[in-house]
Amino acid sequence: MHFTPERMTPLKALRLGIDTHQELIIYLRADCPVCRSEGFSAMSRVLVSSDQHHAIATLNIVTGDLLERGQIGFSESAWQRLQLHDSDPLWLSHPKPVQSLSYVRAKVYGHELDEMAFQSIINDIVDGRYADVHVAAFVTACGDDHLNDNEITALTHAMIKAGSTINWHLPIVIDKHCVGGLPGNRTTPIVVPILAACGLTMPKTSSRAITSPAGTADTMETLTNVSLTQKEMREVVKQQGACLAWGGAMRLSPADDLLIQVERALDIDSEGQLIASVLSKKIAAGATHVLIDIPVGSTAKIRTPEAAEKLAASFRSVAKKLGLNIEILLTDGSQPVGRGIGPALEAYDILAVLQNSPGAPKDLKDRACMVAGAMLEMIGEEKPGAGQAKALSILESGLAWEKFQAICFAQGGLHKPPVAAYRYSLVCHIAGIVTAIDNRQLAQIAKLAGAPADPEAGVEFFVKLGQHVEENQIMMTIHAANAGELNYAVDYLEDHRQVILIEQEQEQEQEQEK
Amino acid sequence: MHFTPERMTPLKALRLGIDTHQELIIYLRADCPVCRSEGFSAMSRVLVSSDQHHAIATLNIVTGDLLERGQIGFSESAWQRLQLHDSDPLWLSHPKPVQSLSYVRAKVYGHELDEMAFQSIINDIVDGRYADVHVAAFVTACGDDHLNDNEITALTHAMIKAGSTINWHLPIVIDKHCVGGLPGNRTTPIVVPILAACGLTMPKTSSRAITSPAGTADTMETLTNVSLTQKEMREVVKQQGACLAWGGAMRLSPADDLLIQVERALDIDSEGQLIASVLSKKIAAGATHVLIDIPVGSTAKIRTPEAAEKLAASFRSVAKKLGLNIEILLTDGSQPVGRGIGPALEAYDILAVLQNSPGAPKDLKDRACMVAGAMLEMIGEEKPGAGQAKALSILESGLAWEKFQAICFAQGGLHKPPVAAYRYSLVCHIAGIVTAIDNRQLAQIAKLAGAPADPEAGVEFFVKLGQHVEENQIMMTIHAANAGELNYAVDYLEDHRQVILIEQEQEQEQEQEK
Repeated sequence: MHFTPERMTPLKALRLGIDTHQELIIYLRADCPVCRSEGFSAMSRVLVSSDQHHAIATLNIVTGDLLERGQIGFSESAWQRLQLHDSDPLWLSHPKPVQSLSYVRAKVYGHELDEMAFQSIINDIVDGRYADVHVAAFVTACGDDHLNDNEITALTHAMIKAGSTINWHLPIVIDKHCVGGLPGNRTTPIVVPILAACGLTMPKTSSRAITSPAGTADTMETLTNVSLTQKEMREVVKQQGACLAWGGAMRLSPADDLLIQVERALDIDSEGQLIASVLSKKIAAGATHVLIDIPVGSTAKIRTPEAAEKLAASFRSVAKKLGLNIEILLTDGSQPVGRGIGPALEAYDILAVLQNSPGAPKDLKDRACMVAGAMLEMIGEEKPGAGQAKALSILESGLAWEKFQAICFAQGGLHKPPVAAYRYSLVCHIAGIVTAIDNRQLAQIAKLAGAPADPEAGVEFFVKLGQHVEENQIMMTIHAANAGELNYAVDYLEDHRQVILIEQEQEQEQEQEK
Repeated sequence: MHFTPERMTPLKALRLGIDTHQELIIYLRADCPVCRSEGFSAMSRVLVSSDQHHAIATLNIVTGDLLERGQIGFSESAWQRLQLHDSDPLWLSHPKPVQSLSYVRAKVYGHELDEMAFQSIINDIVDGRYADVHVAAFVTACGDDHLNDNEITALTHAMIKAGSTINWHLPIVIDKHCVGGLPGNRTTPIVVPILAACGLTMPKTSSRAITSPAGTADTMETLTNVSLTQKEMREVVKQQGACLAWGGAMRLSPADDLLIQVERALDIDSEGQLIASVLSKKIAAGATHVLIDIPVGSTAKIRTPEAAEKLAASFRSVAKKLGLNIEILLTDGSQPVGRGIGPALEAYDILAVLQNSPGAPKDLKDRACMVAGAMLEMIGEEKPGAGQAKALSILESGLAWEKFQAICFAQGGLHKPPVAAYRYSLVCHIAGIVTAIDNRQLAQIAKLAGAPADPEAGVEFFVKLGQHVEENQIMMTIHAANAGELNYAVDYLEDHRQVILIEQEQEQEQEQEK
């Protein structure tokens, strides 16, 4: 008389072509018998099983005619997770309660979690057992500084174990990371060839932009192929000592990719999750020595030296527990670096520095050499204080540019970044001194202009804090792929003129006061 | 040269017929120009504006052919919020940052929030500015006992102000609430006519079940019409002194309905939000005197007397600050009340008690009279200790049954609850004593059998803790509207036989030991 769900008539899979990002969504007709028999309703969590795979998804109920009787619709994320083909048979049932949610609740109630608890949570997140609201609860419960250093260490371990790891079988494998967005601060493509030219191993994997106008992977993609498999990456590194690849396809700390989406939506700063995110990626990628660049400035992610020191102390403590060598560099985060903001514009800055062009942005060059120098010093290649000069000499000798080209060719060739057809330049209406630059608003303008989806879009920014500007001098140029996007960025700029503040110089002001 | 979003070519509205519950979802083609110009991607938060209304929704990207060029698809929730008609013109833009999220972050960082902060958060939630992940962050940040009594009071005020309120212009308006699920504990439809027969005013609004097999509104709906407008409710109360209506359409504390969905998904207990939820509904409905019934038992919501006392103390403190008279009754939560679990089965229990039928469940009758008696005492109608006897006399006199019928007729007529065609009875395999009953699993069986969507479905439960049962005695009968649902509940029961524990009696055990 009784039957289990597996013996019920299966539903037929239909790919609806709806992109819901990481959230797995399935769609059922309101009159579907399984909805009534299982008591499913809109937003129920449902266990979906094919012959091969299963996953927990969130249910949307279709009251229109999107589905025929007996069909079950899938979002792209759910379709891919179950590796389906059209009309594959599927069964639905109630998922078992997600046990690790009890640890999330324990964290809400202020308890310290151990590594086993974090591992359960992270495994369930990677296995897709958490809806976004559950991830949001976990992120919130760990928010601010609710995790102590032991917990951050345990979380980092758990995130590493939930994905692939690479062992290079080398005593020194170096890496770097910059915390928090400073527009144009694209030192990585300069640092990597400098250090590789010194004979060091630096298998650099980078992310695409999530909320910024460009990630390092977006910028590098305007110059070469960055979509390497782990195997391809290993070959490039074996050949050249380094790579400049996109890390997204390598399953290094995949939990991080899922957590970060919800963290951005909530914009809840979590020191613990920031540290676990960075260090889990680096350790999974096989790094032994990591430099962390923390730009500090009033419109940067880290706004005060005190906050930077606190973060640095936690980074050091957790890295020590994890057996990772770490060096922290606090840098100036008060204004953009280089001229370009956006994938291709940043790539042109990088090429200018690597090629030692006369007009190359000096601040980008200096920062890249400072970072590379600090890394040479931390691994003992150079004595304290001598690293930056060494990095500069490698850069100016042309060896870094040679190495950069070799890496690009190993990854699939070097090509010229695209150039935008549509531009708008902002000129200065009065002569004066640049007294403030809003990094966040600049990034917003570059995104409205189309970056990073349009690689040629973004902002060219020509002035620096403290610089004297003349009337009618061009301060910034917006680049876009079409007129619509250009206008949209210009509209925003007109509403947010405080993105650059110009003050008339004191002598002039005093004259006016008279 | 520049244009604002309003001057862009509008998109045409299309109702997709997808029920996403409270989450507002819009659907755009991947090649839609506004996606590129605005940088929208899957799960972006987007401001949707019609000529009349606007709302913030979450974006899903359609890569298939669900939409034609120039169309924008809507979930049912988004369609209703914008009050759309087919092909209505719509414009999309970036929503302004939701300022009140900074208060959610402040709560995560451990700060105390004031009423202004709670009001901003609650207004934004009611206005649909929060995605479910944001609501989840708020619920989590307020979880456990992270809100002090001042904050709970402020949150309650904010929730009341965000909806409608009713003023009855009477010195005493009574109400009751039972905290947490005890299957079959449906005293309200008995308490209301007892008190109304005493001449008191009790405008009772109840909810439908969310995760339980029946809410009071579901049970009453098997007997009469419960979908009253506020105006209709006022007339019924004017005529009969009381009503037994569904509160869902009345916009009393609408934030509560939105918060509660996410709270259930997370299953994070929050004393503060429980109290704010209950008291905001009662005060918005115009109550002056409220009795809170807290069942305590190992498988009830509140599991220990200590937890119940702590909750009661907070209820009293917050009610005092809000100027509400409150009385707390801690009751036995160890086992189901009455026999029926499910809308119609509970209705038959209620009818039996009201009609003084010989087989009426005594525990339900006693509990209803205890609750009604406590309420008569709290408003000074009866001396301490005399309330329950008074309530019993009203019930046994038939006055309560007369009043119940009058209320039902005022609401639209009294009808007979439906009866299930499919049944399965569980018999006892050994003689013994009932030593444990799992309330949660019983509720699960009733839901698997189809309750509350099928009003006739549920469980009839015939035994009580400590009762002697004979071999082959029927302990419970599952009721269902069809064979499939019946089987599903039976399967679950067979996997969870510990729903009732029977122990052989001591004499027999001792005999066996010899």
